[in-house]
Amino acid sequence: MTRKGQRARRKADAISQMPYRQLRNPYSPLEVLRADEISKVHDVAMRILEEVGLRIMDGQARAVLKAAGFSTKKGSEIVTFDRDGVMELVAKAPASFSVRGRDPAKNIVIGDGHIAFTGVGGPPFVSSLDHGRRPATRDDMIAFLKLCHALNVLHIEGGLAAEPSDLPAQSRYLDYFLGCCLLSDKPWKPTTIGRHRAEDAMTMARICYGEDDRALTENPVFCVNTNTNTPLVLDPEIAQGIMVYAAAGQAVCVTPFALAGAMAPATPAAALALQSAETLAVCALVQAVRPGCPYVYGSFLCNVDMRTGSPAFGTPEYTWGAQASGQMARFYGLPWRSSNVNASNAPDAQAAYESEMSLWGALTGHAGLLNHAAGWLEGGLVASYEKLILDAEMLQMMAAWMEPPAMDSDAFGFESIAEVGPGGHFFGTEHTLARYETAFYKPLLSDWSNFENWSEAGAKDATLRANALWKRMLAEYQAPPIDLAIKDELECFVAKRKEEIGGTA
Amino acid sequence: MTRKGQRARRKADAISQMPYRQLRNPYSPLEVLRADEISKVHDVAMRILEEVGLRIMDGQARAVLKAAGFSTKKGSEIVTFDRDGVMELVAKAPASFSVRGRDPAKNIVIGDGHIAFTGVGGPPFVSSLDHGRRPATRDDMIAFLKLCHALNVLHIEGGLAAEPSDLPAQSRYLDYFLGCCLLSDKPWKPTTIGRHRAEDAMTMARICYGEDDRALTENPVFCVNTNTNTPLVLDPEIAQGIMVYAAAGQAVCVTPFALAGAMAPATPAAALALQSAETLAVCALVQAVRPGCPYVYGSFLCNVDMRTGSPAFGTPEYTWGAQASGQMARFYGLPWRSSNVNASNAPDAQAAYESEMSLWGALTGHAGLLNHAAGWLEGGLVASYEKLILDAEMLQMMAAWMEPPAMDSDAFGFESIAEVGPGGHFFGTEHTLARYETAFYKPLLSDWSNFENWSEAGAKDATLRANALWKRMLAEYQAPPIDLAIKDELECFVAKRKEEIGGTA
Repeated sequence: MTRKGQRARRKADAISQMPYRQLRNPYSPLEVLRADEISKVHDVAMRILEEVGLRIMDGQARAVLKAAGFSTKKGSEIVTFDRDGVMELVAKAPASFSVRGRDPAKNIVIGDGHIAFTGVGGPPFVSSLDHGRRPATRDDMIAFLKLCHALNVLHIEGGLAAEPSDLPAQSRYLDYFLGCCLLSDKPWKPTTIGRHRAEDAMTMARICYGEDDRALTENPVFCVNTNTNTPLVLDPEIAQGIMVYAAAGQAVCVTPFALAGAMAPATPAAALALQSAETLAVCALVQAVRPGCPYVYGSFLCNVDMRTGSPAFGTPEYTWGAQASGQMARFYGLPWRSSNVNASNAPDAQAAYESEMSLWGALTGHAGLLNHAAGWLEGGLVASYEKLILDAEMLQMMAAWMEPPAMDSDAFGFESIAEVGPGGHFFGTEHTLARYETAFYKPLLSDWSNFENWSEAGAKDATLRANALWKRMLAEYQAPPIDLAIKDELECFVAKRKEEIGGTA
Repeated sequence: MTRKGQRARRKADAISQMPYRQLRNPYSPLEVLRADEISKVHDVAMRILEEVGLRIMDGQARAVLKAAGFSTKKGSEIVTFDRDGVMELVAKAPASFSVRGRDPAKNIVIGDGHIAFTGVGGPPFVSSLDHGRRPATRDDMIAFLKLCHALNVLHIEGGLAAEPSDLPAQSRYLDYFLGCCLLSDKPWKPTTIGRHRAEDAMTMARICYGEDDRALTENPVFCVNTNTNTPLVLDPEIAQGIMVYAAAGQAVCVTPFALAGAMAPATPAAALALQSAETLAVCALVQAVRPGCPYVYGSFLCNVDMRTGSPAFGTPEYTWGAQASGQMARFYGLPWRSSNVNASNAPDAQAAYESEMSLWGALTGHAGLLNHAAGWLEGGLVASYEKLILDAEMLQMMAAWMEPPAMDSDAFGFESIAEVGPGGHFFGTEHTLARYETAFYKPLLSDWSNFENWSEAGAKDATLRANALWKRMLAEYQAPPIDLAIKDELECFVAKRKEEIGGTA
């Protein structure tokens, strides 16, 4: 093969991805609640805060809330919140904000129509067609960090896609933080559980960005993600983590797990009110710590399958719940977080259609932050290599849909229509040839070849093709550049902290 | 097993389907075009009609149009349409209408927010996991008719899901018409190609409904579906068919195949204008034949993959094109037809996510008629048994999403939240128990069991489960009752016509 031939071959073989870009939804949100229904949800949420309250299991958090004017029920950890006080604090949070990547070109805006997609976070298991389903290891953690970096459609690392069971439990968060710093230059999501983990994340941010606390506070680098323990409990370790990040001016997203029929009543209306009450209470805490701190209204409204007790995701109620949650977040002037979820046990058609139900709920509901946007399977128990690629294709399609085509007179090409006339063909026209390369969406994974060609190429379904693609993407991964002194300092810090923690055996 | 135990077992085993129901979209449509962009599309469409015109390949149709004031270009079959004349005729078509099933409970409204789902129509091939992909036969035609009847979520038969290659080409439409009459009591879609086929369909309608022409005209039973030959050609046989149905007051839907980059310019804007021009011209013809005849603005806006020349379906451009087409149809006061399409070669994750892109385009765009809603695969070359079931699940989910949950004070269940309080659980509450049976969407196909149970049951993915489900549904099929005299008369008519046509050898 000639050198020119080789170059052409390489180009033809390159993985076809959309370029990295910030996304903005240009269309109006789809509203499933009437204005009077929004008022009802708000009123029930406020009654929950005023009459039932939240159990805040951390003394310091209760002290902050007391100083902000909220009282604790006698002899309990339950704080009640008057609606005026809560709404006054919630109003201090901005409608949008940005978080920063190590590469400034990867800084990303969240809210006000801008949307960020993150990788999957949290699963204890991984699966692939090669090795099936098994507990995740350090190698899986590394692989998912690399793939999240390599996929242009993902804006933020997902918050530990695969919990590495082969690393010591007490210190594995440090390996994860270090991996985020070294293997990607996109923003990442440190854990929010416990004060010292949060403080270590802030120390590593100082090293990584070469900035002092003030600079990091003014322009946050993290949007951390955590949850209440629905119904109406804020865990002490989570409260401590939240307060460290809020004090440091980092964006905080708190998502109640309002699983209707289990942790919430068996009605979407009640789950929506309960979810609103919980996330607004934590928003008030965050604003009491640092007024104006970026905060994201998190939603995860879904239900149990009453027959099996399993959570159901990507269902009609899930989609409605997402769109309704988006409306509530906008009512409160907060950016909104949704997810790309499904309950399938395999990266199959069910996983795809449940994900699409989630995605359309999120996008038409104007999510600012889409967590678990790629790789989530089996109700969040599994990070799936193949699903990561399936999702990347689905996300690319949503991203392309949010870029409406040109509507100028050149695009209408009336002269071309007149020239071709009745019964003609447009393939050879100048109007078409001028657009040949860039006219339409180019897929990452979808195969549009005809049946004969597809069969000859092995009759591979989308999941099989995804398997080949993630392996190739991993093989072609290139680490983003990093200053060696910064790398050294990060590694020294992690080694020192591991020694202090004593879990490196 | 006791009789009671057997009954319970049967009940547990029953295929879990949503009940048959009319659907209405309660939410506002998602608008991708601004008002000034709608005006631009309209203006280009009108310029196409005024300056380029349509080749109308049937003399009688040209005569009707001439009588309506439109002129034919000298020495050609090309008719040009002035915008005032077209818009005046288009304004005569109603914004919604209904078509009737043999069972009056299956009458269905199309337009003004009401939506009807139809089965797939047209493919020459069928596929299933059992026998792979092969030319369709009479048995396949029968099986699809039965399944379309059995699936509650489908409102209208699809227009010959599987073209029976083992029946004589000249008369197979009669076997198909007869199958529609006998195997289902839902509305069906006779062919529009050729005058005598359309006349036979009307004769069979008279027999089937026991009504005269006047009754059938006042309350149509058909919404026939056909197409222009884009760009800007109306086939003679199609024109003749359309005129028979229009004269009989039956609803007509005409869908240009505006494949951008091939039969239309390589821009969505131009394809949208060309599509509008063509369907409005045929609407004018239909209104000239019978003012007030129900008419549906059909859209099928998609593009070729510039690399392979294959049509791409369920892409970002397809979704945008659907939503934009819906806006144009509303601008013209016409019900709008969209489709559930995909370009996958297998009933896999790609088929599912491309279908979902189509479905969300159709539903958020307020389609009144969703053709090929279940069973379409491989860009329409294949009617897939498994895809039929996958689609039925997706359609059920969309239908359930269009039924927003209760938002009354009982649904909010504040007392239940106060009673459970922080850290409690809602599973055993009265509020939950009262809703145990009916609380949430119940799937037809989706499997929400945990990984262990799913693995024990054979680790079947959605496509494998769909395979089992269509076979079971076919085995359990029960023909709807029909008056034996009507059945006899239909069969005699078909036998007589076959003899006349002479293709029964």
